[in-house]
Amino acid sequence: MTNEYASEVEDLSVSACWALLRAGSIGRLAVWVEDHPEIFPLNYAVDHGSLVFRSAEGTKLAAALSDVPVALEIDGYDASSAQAWSVVVKGNAEQIQGLQDLMDTVDLPLFPWQAGPKGRFIRILPTVVTGRRFPVADPSVWRTPLSEAKRSSTD
Amino acid sequence: MTNEYASEVEDLSVSACWALLRAGSIGRLAVWVEDHPEIFPLNYAVDHGSLVFRSAEGTKLAAALSDVPVALEIDGYDASSAQAWSVVVKGNAEQIQGLQDLMDTVDLPLFPWQAGPKGRFIRILPTVVTGRRFPVADPSVWRTPLSEAKRSSTD
Repeated sequence: MTNEYASEVEDLSVSACWALLRAGSIGRLAVWVEDHPEIFPLNYAVDHGSLVFRSAEGTKLAAALSDVPVALEIDGYDASSAQAWSVVVKGNAEQIQGLQDLMDTVDLPLFPWQAGPKGRFIRILPTVVTGRRFPVADPSVWRTPLSEAKRSSTD
Repeated sequence: MTNEYASEVEDLSVSACWALLRAGSIGRLAVWVEDHPEIFPLNYAVDHGSLVFRSAEGTKLAAALSDVPVALEIDGYDASSAQAWSVVVKGNAEQIQGLQDLMDTVDLPLFPWQAGPKGRFIRILPTVVTGRRFPVADPSVWRTPLSEAKRSSTD
């Protein structure tokens, strides 16, 4: 059974991941703040192999700009095929400082999901881009998991 | 302008957060793996003030079960009011081991978003539950940010 299900998970090519990233605009950013993870929804844009988002001052910006890597995830679900997908970009984030770089990015379709001053432009430089597509399990398969519960309890 | 916008962000009460958590079923879990964050979409259920999800062996399980806190985020958007919301649960995760505890959880509406063996039941014990609701910015407000770009460049 393991192989049967596992074979249904499709690793996405890097180019397929970027196609999904370009088509999307809302993701969730995971950052490490002091001693715990934080997650924020945000609006991003793809810019020449990097991701750009806008941020106000604060925890999100400070955490993203530390040396600690960040991860941005987008996902979606295609009801017609009952397939879901998830793409994760990992990398480091840096504030866009140079005027020319700023001028190049201000025309990106970026708008904060949340209103308010978002004066900083942040760029994520990806080091790893991964994605997978998988059929969503039929809930009925899993609603009577007594046998599995028993198995787990005796592991 | 700062205050005008900031006043539109509504912090949600803990009970409002739980109501949204109970109404939802898909979230993204941020975990810390070695030296970087990971994010996974997953299906969860609320169970007596905790969150339960199913997991196969592997990175996700191992990371969630370390002493490092995890964060689970859900969000949504109400087009009619143009308001988005985001709820984050932070806490530690533990594998559900006892048979009685397992028997209590197998009837939860839990099914893995992705098919495959998901023999372990994981419980997140929340330490912090926060949420906010905010109007989504009109993209037109942000599509001509040249003045802001100039301001940022001279900070």
